[in-house]
Amino acid sequence: MPTYKAPLRDFRFLLNDLLNIQNYGNLPGFAEATPDMVDAVLDGSAQLMEEVIAPLNQVGDLEGCKLDNGVVTTPTGFKAAYKTYCEGGWNGLTADPEYGGQGLPHVLGLAMSEMMTSANMAFGMYPGLSHGAYEAIHAWGTDEQKKLYLPRIVSGEWSGTMNLTEPHCGTDLGLLRTKAEPQADGSYKITGTKIFISAGEHDLTSNIIHLVLAKVPGGPAGIKGISLFIVPKFMVNADGSLGARNGVMCGSLEHKMGIHGNATCVLNYDGATGYLIGEKHKGMRAMFTMMNAARLGVGMQGLAVAEIAYQNAVSYAKDRVQGRSLTGTKDAGKPADPIIVHPDIRRMLLTIRAFTEGARALALWTGINIDLANKHPDPAQRQAADDLVALLTPMVKSYLTDAGYESATMAQQVWGGHGYIRENGMEQFVRDARIAMIYEGANGIQALDLVGRKLPTGMGRLLRRFFHPVEQFIQENVAGPAGKDFVMPLAKAFARLQQATAYVAEQGLKNPDEAGAASSDYLRLFALVALGHMWAQKALVAQAKLNDGAQDRAFYETKLVTARFFMERLLPDTGSLLAKVQAGGRTMMALDAANF
Amino acid sequence: MPTYKAPLRDFRFLLNDLLNIQNYGNLPGFAEATPDMVDAVLDGSAQLMEEVIAPLNQVGDLEGCKLDNGVVTTPTGFKAAYKTYCEGGWNGLTADPEYGGQGLPHVLGLAMSEMMTSANMAFGMYPGLSHGAYEAIHAWGTDEQKKLYLPRIVSGEWSGTMNLTEPHCGTDLGLLRTKAEPQADGSYKITGTKIFISAGEHDLTSNIIHLVLAKVPGGPAGIKGISLFIVPKFMVNADGSLGARNGVMCGSLEHKMGIHGNATCVLNYDGATGYLIGEKHKGMRAMFTMMNAARLGVGMQGLAVAEIAYQNAVSYAKDRVQGRSLTGTKDAGKPADPIIVHPDIRRMLLTIRAFTEGARALALWTGINIDLANKHPDPAQRQAADDLVALLTPMVKSYLTDAGYESATMAQQVWGGHGYIRENGMEQFVRDARIAMIYEGANGIQALDLVGRKLPTGMGRLLRRFFHPVEQFIQENVAGPAGKDFVMPLAKAFARLQQATAYVAEQGLKNPDEAGAASSDYLRLFALVALGHMWAQKALVAQAKLNDGAQDRAFYETKLVTARFFMERLLPDTGSLLAKVQAGGRTMMALDAANF
Repeated sequence: MPTYKAPLRDFRFLLNDLLNIQNYGNLPGFAEATPDMVDAVLDGSAQLMEEVIAPLNQVGDLEGCKLDNGVVTTPTGFKAAYKTYCEGGWNGLTADPEYGGQGLPHVLGLAMSEMMTSANMAFGMYPGLSHGAYEAIHAWGTDEQKKLYLPRIVSGEWSGTMNLTEPHCGTDLGLLRTKAEPQADGSYKITGTKIFISAGEHDLTSNIIHLVLAKVPGGPAGIKGISLFIVPKFMVNADGSLGARNGVMCGSLEHKMGIHGNATCVLNYDGATGYLIGEKHKGMRAMFTMMNAARLGVGMQGLAVAEIAYQNAVSYAKDRVQGRSLTGTKDAGKPADPIIVHPDIRRMLLTIRAFTEGARALALWTGINIDLANKHPDPAQRQAADDLVALLTPMVKSYLTDAGYESATMAQQVWGGHGYIRENGMEQFVRDARIAMIYEGANGIQALDLVGRKLPTGMGRLLRRFFHPVEQFIQENVAGPAGKDFVMPLAKAFARLQQATAYVAEQGLKNPDEAGAASSDYLRLFALVALGHMWAQKALVAQAKLNDGAQDRAFYETKLVTARFFMERLLPDTGSLLAKVQAGGRTMMALDAANF
Repeated sequence: MPTYKAPLRDFRFLLNDLLNIQNYGNLPGFAEATPDMVDAVLDGSAQLMEEVIAPLNQVGDLEGCKLDNGVVTTPTGFKAAYKTYCEGGWNGLTADPEYGGQGLPHVLGLAMSEMMTSANMAFGMYPGLSHGAYEAIHAWGTDEQKKLYLPRIVSGEWSGTMNLTEPHCGTDLGLLRTKAEPQADGSYKITGTKIFISAGEHDLTSNIIHLVLAKVPGGPAGIKGISLFIVPKFMVNADGSLGARNGVMCGSLEHKMGIHGNATCVLNYDGATGYLIGEKHKGMRAMFTMMNAARLGVGMQGLAVAEIAYQNAVSYAKDRVQGRSLTGTKDAGKPADPIIVHPDIRRMLLTIRAFTEGARALALWTGINIDLANKHPDPAQRQAADDLVALLTPMVKSYLTDAGYESATMAQQVWGGHGYIRENGMEQFVRDARIAMIYEGANGIQALDLVGRKLPTGMGRLLRRFFHPVEQFIQENVAGPAGKDFVMPLAKAFARLQQATAYVAEQGLKNPDEAGAASSDYLRLFALVALGHMWAQKALVAQAKLNDGAQDRAFYETKLVTARFFMERLLPDTGSLLAKVQAGGRTMMALDAANF
């Protein structure tokens, strides 16, 4: 069975040395995030995930969830583990203290979330969905709604869900058919079928607060007629106690490729009582509050699964003896050398590691900017951070999940035939990681969001939030001691990104299909540059630490090697990606549908 | 449930217009392969695979194989389908007429094998393994052994297996422990445990002929002490009738990520009677006869699964309406446009198609060369063809399975959330395709075979078998009408391959780890050039057909579009691959194992 050790040393490096969270003491929540507190959160979270949550990952995969007469039972151990998780206060780590949360920085929440997902992705989705519901109610609920629902969601007593998809519509929510009929008391009767509802029904909590997109009859057609509703599984009395069962039932559980431990439900709404949240017909805006948080969370899933897959590939590669090193016997005491002596095994391991560590830096940097966007006293700074988050979100969602899946596949490859066998757990990582490329907006939709929405916003304003600091970083460091090895490759890749951007902007303006044709390759090119920016910074920090005589030399030297590997072996893809972007869309649009 | 239509039009194009099999009438077997016969084989095979074998694919995945007291039951319908397959004579299509085969060209066998694997990969492995056993016995068996075993293997009455792997060794067979003790009657007693034995035990045939690697005590250590043995499940009397049960039993079935319909067995040999095949201590040489055939077969699996995944992605993309085209409504009669209007969906579909059609050409070209190597009257021509097959085999195995898996993943992506649901069958393709990257020598081992064995052979003699015709093709056609679009891109990629080859040869000579570090990226670069060579030729043929006023214009025009897409969107990867090759191995070898 796979094992998991939280990458605490890397988290500390990123939080303390790269992102310098100690400099944000003026923001609410950060003052409390003293070095001691950060250590306590990281250590406590690591212990919980390693010892309690991770051992349930394979159980969850093999048992799955069971539906019996509308009641869903989660796999053995999930309920007890969820109780432990809630009792430790982990569910409210970053939530608003007004509703019982601890109000700690979002960036710390991301670190915990990565650990939870590495340990058990299917388990982590239950609190993950609750967190989305929390965000939506917190942002758009009335004071009354917030007081009624948030404390129990924050404590974990209740959970939450997001209900968007219907059998005939996912990406195109304008087509949705679920109806919300207004009632005399101001509530609505919700009727329709929602599918693919993660954590839609289960036995972990006493109530489930569904957030449901539906159309109020008589509203505008399409996406502009959608409203968002709170639909509790059990009605909630004014004092927060539970009332009657509401008219929402789990009709079936999906049989899926992976994440078996999470209940993916068909939910049938049959005149269920719902309460409007936010403005009528402005449901998409409210839903996006949830979706943006969720997209970052999904991006973290790619990274998190890659991390645990990497760890278990490394231990196998050190353990499995097979053949001799190409340059002569390395361990004469054994019948063969451990396979980690082979360059191609190292290529796979370092490819995963250069990805996970770069991705972790990018995700936590995004997390810091979410904190800045939410909490910075200066509105201009808030806007700047919000812009950057908006720009980075599709890349974190899409690239981290694509590369996360590729990484899980590569880690499985290190195990050879044994990686294909269920009991060894490596193939579960691949199956679990696969969904992250699909849900919360398939990765192609993220790419369209990037080129079609994020690039044009404010005539490239979002783009400049990234381009300017990168340009500045290159200028300041290219002539420095690490310039040749770590800054020049970034500069070269960044120049390709600028060319690609000019191409997309120019051609896309003439013909939107050109932007669409370039979108996925452009996103990947952009994300590689974003990771390259992180790696170049990390290399500079690591070099400085070594120059300053830091104790933990092996850690910083390994950082430099991995940074170098990223520059040599991952970043060159920007060249072929630019060529693909510049190939344009003419060829792919040339065929009649009938000729595919 | 997915459906399958054999790509007959493409097979005919490749066999008749690209490979011109009608020109090989002087070779045994080819004379019989008249256009009518080829049509009959293709059509008959297509019908069987589409109507009988394909409908069992999902059944096989969901039911799997069952082991009860040593007896393995295959999924519902497999036995009847296997009977139909054998009765149609398909099992002996390319086998030696002396033993009941039809002696048709190997290239036709590959076409049938692709169809069978698309239809049902797990099913196709049963005859696939038999074919490997046939090859080994045909090449290395005594006349007596051939007469005793081959007719019933050819008819399909008996099946075969390959027994290499043991719990502690797969790649490094020198470590194997299975013992073969010589007996007074010239037979051996085989004792040991073999794992991962595909089709190792099942109910399709009355006997199973295991080919088993084992060590005769007192022989040389390591790989030089390995011999190959025939170990029948039931003893075979001199008249071919079955005798007592031999001492080989299925101890357990593996629980695997995919190919559930094929029984992957632990086989326990407990003093089982075995018969030496080939020379003592020369078992590896005999085994390679099977492995080379098997490696091509496995490469075909990547292509074949990608083909059926593509077909079902296309039908979903035409059917599923969601959103509107970026350039305005395309189907006003529907609530939304079919998603095939979107460039990014087309990018995914064409990426798969440019791969499958290019790969099919490469595989069939390899197949023709197998026929030439086996049957050409001129020894020099035989050697040339054999060299080319040896060179291409690791590329066909490795690149076709890597890209096949990526293609299956992409096809699943087109289906969005519905692709993650078991009932829809798209995720099965991904799980099934995954194993092909691992077995018959993991893809990293193929890459080492290419750089470490195939490149140096005869001072680059194998390499020249590919380089010379490519150079000649470029020279002859670069100035032609299709030169700019189809030959120039190939020339550019080929120049990169030459640079990469020079790098690998030079650096690898100094330090074998440098060859290892480059191997996987080098193999992929080489394979892309090989596919590019195929696509350029196909484009020229298609252009000529159009110029000649061919009837089937849409077919040839689609070929040109797909060829162009290959040049624009797949071949550019050769640029980044060259950069990775030239990055060298220093960085990946820098870390101590402890620091991973």
